[in-house]
Amino acid sequence: MTADLSLRRLNAADPEFARHLDHLLSWESVSDDAVNQRVLEIIANVRSRGDAALVEYSQRFDQVEATSMADLILPRERLELALQRITPEQRQALETAAARVRSYHEKQRQDSWSYTEADGTVLGQKVTPLDRAGLYVPGGKAAYPSSVLMNAIPAKVAGVPEVVMVVPTPRGELNEIVLAAAAIAGVDRVFCIGGAQAVAALAYGTESVPPVDKIVGPGNIYVATAKRHVFGKVGIDMIAGPSEILVVCDGQTDPDWIAMDLFSQAEHDEDAQAILVSPDAAFLDRVAASIAKLLPTLEREAIARTSLQGRGALIQVADMAQAIEVANRIAPEHLELSVENPEQYLPQIRHAGAIFMGRYTAEALGDYCAGPNHVLPTSGTARFSSPLGVYDFQKRSSIIHCSAEGASALGKVASVLARGESLTAHARSAEYRIK
Amino acid sequence: MTADLSLRRLNAADPEFARHLDHLLSWESVSDDAVNQRVLEIIANVRSRGDAALVEYSQRFDQVEATSMADLILPRERLELALQRITPEQRQALETAAARVRSYHEKQRQDSWSYTEADGTVLGQKVTPLDRAGLYVPGGKAAYPSSVLMNAIPAKVAGVPEVVMVVPTPRGELNEIVLAAAAIAGVDRVFCIGGAQAVAALAYGTESVPPVDKIVGPGNIYVATAKRHVFGKVGIDMIAGPSEILVVCDGQTDPDWIAMDLFSQAEHDEDAQAILVSPDAAFLDRVAASIAKLLPTLEREAIARTSLQGRGALIQVADMAQAIEVANRIAPEHLELSVENPEQYLPQIRHAGAIFMGRYTAEALGDYCAGPNHVLPTSGTARFSSPLGVYDFQKRSSIIHCSAEGASALGKVASVLARGESLTAHARSAEYRIK
Repeated sequence: MTADLSLRRLNAADPEFARHLDHLLSWESVSDDAVNQRVLEIIANVRSRGDAALVEYSQRFDQVEATSMADLILPRERLELALQRITPEQRQALETAAARVRSYHEKQRQDSWSYTEADGTVLGQKVTPLDRAGLYVPGGKAAYPSSVLMNAIPAKVAGVPEVVMVVPTPRGELNEIVLAAAAIAGVDRVFCIGGAQAVAALAYGTESVPPVDKIVGPGNIYVATAKRHVFGKVGIDMIAGPSEILVVCDGQTDPDWIAMDLFSQAEHDEDAQAILVSPDAAFLDRVAASIAKLLPTLEREAIARTSLQGRGALIQVADMAQAIEVANRIAPEHLELSVENPEQYLPQIRHAGAIFMGRYTAEALGDYCAGPNHVLPTSGTARFSSPLGVYDFQKRSSIIHCSAEGASALGKVASVLARGESLTAHARSAEYRIK
Repeated sequence: MTADLSLRRLNAADPEFARHLDHLLSWESVSDDAVNQRVLEIIANVRSRGDAALVEYSQRFDQVEATSMADLILPRERLELALQRITPEQRQALETAAARVRSYHEKQRQDSWSYTEADGTVLGQKVTPLDRAGLYVPGGKAAYPSSVLMNAIPAKVAGVPEVVMVVPTPRGELNEIVLAAAAIAGVDRVFCIGGAQAVAALAYGTESVPPVDKIVGPGNIYVATAKRHVFGKVGIDMIAGPSEILVVCDGQTDPDWIAMDLFSQAEHDEDAQAILVSPDAAFLDRVAASIAKLLPTLEREAIARTSLQGRGALIQVADMAQAIEVANRIAPEHLELSVENPEQYLPQIRHAGAIFMGRYTAEALGDYCAGPNHVLPTSGTARFSSPLGVYDFQKRSSIIHCSAEGASALGKVASVLARGESLTAHARSAEYRIK
């Protein structure tokens, strides 16, 4: 079995390297017409029929026995009960992780500011939290309590008064650790609904589900498509592609560690991408051997194998400078710098969702409990976007308060520019304020 | 003629007020199937045929005589020439505005930060500018030099090395003030292309147009639809709806001033929305009289009339507290607080793109030169989004650097949580780091 894995090897010295790398990275998520049609129908139905539509869809798609919306609402006490049902070790781990995530995110909170100019004019920026945020949590087997912490805590740190969580409960199955995480993260309300119908309910509201201002959290293609369609009515976080890791190693880390770090990404799903870059060809061979040795010992071997076979790669580079170039080209979601003195490379790194520095910083530590968010830009979008953060749950309003003097001086400038644009009511409105 | 204008009057005491207000505000921008199909075709064509497609579309849609891409590239010297061609008064006004916009936006720049924990673990956030930003500028009669300043300056303040501007030039017409604004704002490259094809070129690149990381700037329905489609490949700013102003007045401002402030919004386009709220019914009458008197004196009378007739309103409220409630319900793009001591109301205002405080602060001053950005969230999206700013051109990378001690402690927590999610490769990767 293991002999079957032929992990792709690339060499940056190859004249065709750029093309091969582009091919390796290529990923376009497409919602086909059938999915789009289905989702638009669901959104329209939830908008017109509200709770009744939610109950029907939950019966049909999640095989739940709910007969009314009341059956799909989890009271806060149910979350507290979950805290009793998980093991003390799990509770402790969740609480430690939550405390660390909270403490890191508190540093992201932005404050309002203003300044006064010589003529008394005040300019500023007022920062306020959203009124209400919606958190989509996948149900069933891919239920991730860590995602509940990572999505809900930044909203709470931002000061969002009400965080509403939706989670499908296929055949009525509740995941106790997910509910416990919701309790710890301070989620205010939970509805047992999922799919495009849950996104529609959060965006437009129903009799029971309050409309939110922003929807965050991962989901399948229906959820992602629905988020894209309601974008504009509400804010959304990113539309995530498959998860990826790029490990840059100088050849001095235990190859078993590196293999396991690659697996920790590859085990997510068949489309996940795990890539190792090193200037040390012999080290790449040693990691390949570790992969061959350890892969059969994984519980999610089949998934990891498919992922590595289809989208994984070992890339040889001339030196660390070239390794960093490759990292910037990829703009990875997760960048592990498993090297001596990683600080020296930091100034050259321009694009990465999160940077895991040194041999001890396995990505998995960041996934769960180091503190920074694990919701990160995928598929090269780290070129222009950021980890989920407190800033996603705050918004800004500009403040302008002109003194009589200030308005007179600015009025003259505005008048010239407005007339240059033929917007003469603008000009006259400004001119009224000229002394 | 003027007698024709029957400006809508609402009263918050009316039991049907909420419904009337919802109706007044309702706005859904829909790209119909025909537009979507056309745009998808144009994007596909630009991706496959590059410059050749751009030249053809520019010939067809903009009636330009270009025979090759070289004819559609404006050298930096052409921008400098524009600076000579505008009037010294215009140049001075642009420079004053640019300096003020720059100085306000410099306060928005965010810096990297990090902190070290007791066990030596370092956590932080690295802030970097985008590599390249694209700025769409509408051409022809709706060419706004102020938009060039408002979009390009934040990018430059963020540290974006290359700002690429696209502007259609119908029948070869260049707008000198727009080019002068580009020179002053520090735009690096200009291409005379527009429409969905320009958006496609910026997103995917062609032989001549370099691909950018984010596209900002206003445009027609084709441009907006194209931006929606390339979102994900690149970042985009918001998809703007019609511009709006909400003026809250205590009844003590000159009604002519208020009428002109409402006109300055209404003259933008037929769908623009101008609303006045006051607890003083007699004042609403006086403003209605000023509107009737001044409307016929406007150069853009027809547009302002249609806008006011279709989407304008005068709203009577019981008191200032209710006025602020209405403002929060509307979450207006522009909120003018034309009242005594506007500061007293600021803490209660939760949603607004920009707040213009006091009787002297006409919106027009902020549109051109006060300093804050004039690209603001419309159609109630101020509930969850912010003015365009330096933060739109910077992104963040999380930094995690675990000490051996730190990794050991975090490894134990991560292991418990990963096993709770059945992600055992994650768990084992973390466990390798436990001492």
